[in-house]
Amino acid sequence: MGNDLLILHGGGPTAVMNASLYGAVQAAKRSHLVDRILAAEGGSGGLLKGKLLDMRKVPDEELERLLYTPGSAIGTSRDALWEPEYEKIAQTLEELGIRWLLCNGGNGTMDTCGKIYEVCRRRGTELCVIGIPKTMDNDLAVTDHSPGFGSAARYMAGSVAELSADVQSLPIHIVVLEAMGRNAGWVTAASALAEDSGVPGPDLIYLPEVNFDEEAFLADVQSLIDRKGCGIVVASEGLHGADGNPIVKPVFQVGRSTYFGDVSAHLAQLITQKLGYKARAEKPGLLGRASAAWQSATDREEAALAGQLAVQAALEGQTGKMVAFRRLSTTPYKIQPELVDIHEVMMHERKMPPEFLNDAGNGVTEAFKDWCRPLLGGPLPQLASRNHWQAQL
Amino acid sequence: MGNDLLILHGGGPTAVMNASLYGAVQAAKRSHLVDRILAAEGGSGGLLKGKLLDMRKVPDEELERLLYTPGSAIGTSRDALWEPEYEKIAQTLEELGIRWLLCNGGNGTMDTCGKIYEVCRRRGTELCVIGIPKTMDNDLAVTDHSPGFGSAARYMAGSVAELSADVQSLPIHIVVLEAMGRNAGWVTAASALAEDSGVPGPDLIYLPEVNFDEEAFLADVQSLIDRKGCGIVVASEGLHGADGNPIVKPVFQVGRSTYFGDVSAHLAQLITQKLGYKARAEKPGLLGRASAAWQSATDREEAALAGQLAVQAALEGQTGKMVAFRRLSTTPYKIQPELVDIHEVMMHERKMPPEFLNDAGNGVTEAFKDWCRPLLGGPLPQLASRNHWQAQL
Repeated sequence: MGNDLLILHGGGPTAVMNASLYGAVQAAKRSHLVDRILAAEGGSGGLLKGKLLDMRKVPDEELERLLYTPGSAIGTSRDALWEPEYEKIAQTLEELGIRWLLCNGGNGTMDTCGKIYEVCRRRGTELCVIGIPKTMDNDLAVTDHSPGFGSAARYMAGSVAELSADVQSLPIHIVVLEAMGRNAGWVTAASALAEDSGVPGPDLIYLPEVNFDEEAFLADVQSLIDRKGCGIVVASEGLHGADGNPIVKPVFQVGRSTYFGDVSAHLAQLITQKLGYKARAEKPGLLGRASAAWQSATDREEAALAGQLAVQAALEGQTGKMVAFRRLSTTPYKIQPELVDIHEVMMHERKMPPEFLNDAGNGVTEAFKDWCRPLLGGPLPQLASRNHWQAQL
Repeated sequence: MGNDLLILHGGGPTAVMNASLYGAVQAAKRSHLVDRILAAEGGSGGLLKGKLLDMRKVPDEELERLLYTPGSAIGTSRDALWEPEYEKIAQTLEELGIRWLLCNGGNGTMDTCGKIYEVCRRRGTELCVIGIPKTMDNDLAVTDHSPGFGSAARYMAGSVAELSADVQSLPIHIVVLEAMGRNAGWVTAASALAEDSGVPGPDLIYLPEVNFDEEAFLADVQSLIDRKGCGIVVASEGLHGADGNPIVKPVFQVGRSTYFGDVSAHLAQLITQKLGYKARAEKPGLLGRASAAWQSATDREEAALAGQLAVQAALEGQTGKMVAFRRLSTTPYKIQPELVDIHEVMMHERKMPPEFLNDAGNGVTEAFKDWCRPLLGGPLPQLASRNHWQAQL
């Protein structure tokens, strides 16, 4: 048994996953207990292949850049592991002499994290396993929110505000913007905060928590056209009907992955074909989880804190836990970091609660906006708008 | 004849159209010659309906925000005008007592600007007409570049760099990103500068200046997959075959506008169906012309300068001219503003010259990057990358 620490990333990256890496590496460097600070290159698959990085060799300048670099600089993976691979991972960790393991990821990774913990306990491996929460989708259970979400939310609110300034100036169409988050609508919902920029926010928001009804959608849009002649619709990539099937058809299958058509293109076509009105579809896609330009300062700081606290917990001998955030107060915004049992988190998907959805099923409530606002990490830029001027001749 | 000035916006907005408005309004406010500073609300259609804004009533705080607000705060239009409407516009300008008219726009607007100038000359209207260049597409002739392009270029380069950091960390697919610019590839090409962030730039770039060849495209992508297993393709929305037809089919028609399917979705499907490899399609669309977060400081300053110089030229009695930028030097970057005859600009579309396109037809040259770089308005953020570390164990 050495005194080495290993960091492992899993799942899709976010705008602040590297900020957690920064927090963990810096905390480990400050401790006298830790010898090697290692990272698995490319997630669990990299670990199994013995692809390791020595994080003490990373230049200081590059470490500082981690705070503002989207993605996962040590790589990550989407490999679903088979039972025997957990044994193999435990064995590899033993051979490497790893004493502390930090797993940064979402639902799938916390499941991996919990299973590694169990296998190690069964084998009698002396290993402390701590999870660092990460998901742009915000679908991790138990914690108030997860690092990665605040930046995706800021991207969505800020981009929709900019789009709104554009649409206001040339009000000739409905723009349908597609947001990521297949099963949970948190990111899609965050677009509502665009209005904090001083321009109109999205006119209609469709979340996967609400069964999509084509007739109701077309009635909503017709009413919007009658009222304003233009507008912005934000829709989740995961919209589905009452039967649970996606509203877009699967386009093709590669391996275990099914590819669907774009929800935004589908909805824009519906508007044009059924209502005879101009509609554009936009889909920033991965840009929404990878934006450092719209990174939330609060998100970045909490991500770094989560990495740091995970190291501290592991060094104290804690294991089978994930760092979580409990919200003590919204105004002023106060959170309390805590450790939660990894089993409470594993594979529990967290969706938006009913009190955050409006009655019409096409928007969010003030309660959601109040909850979400502090996660954006400071006010959005204020945009000029002739609605503020009273300058008509 | 009064001493009033009128500002008119035409065509699709950009990230700095309001910065030109700011420059023009501030220059007019500083002059003792100008009485009313008016703006047509919603472009030429607004002018014909007598919808005017008194820009002296705009609060200072809002004026300052114009520098950082995308879109057109006074509105704009895409109305194609009929011959009799030019007479009507001239008559309206006479009735209003407008002495100076500034038209901010692209090819179509400069055509309008030139025609108003001609009608007024024929009628003997004493009016000075000056054009302010604006186009995210950079397809205006005579000038080295136009306000609006630098910010769209910075958005594209910066966003692709962030996307690259994401794709590097989870190298499981080809991402096809679609860029605006139907006939000219300047914005698409600017994605090449993503590499200035210290991460790999786009692997393949397809421009509308090159006839699209599906077989060559699939061979390019197969070779990319063989070499790297993942990568980024940037494609113009306006790709067409040797026959001049768009590579995507028209999906529907509304009025005079034809709507095409998305080029990015089409190319991603080709990759998946013909090569059996995972591919995602992203299309930020209007976000690329409306991004204040990626606004180029150089673009903003030049846009404001163009507005200011247009006012100065008009007040000096110049007419039938457009403000243009001549490049004196690239390193260091130096431009010389000048006035060009509006007839030289009208409806001449400027495409990328052959020396900016690579021989293989799937990328750009160093000469293009050198030309484009200073327009981004300062270095892109430097991103961390394990390619810089040499930290393998």
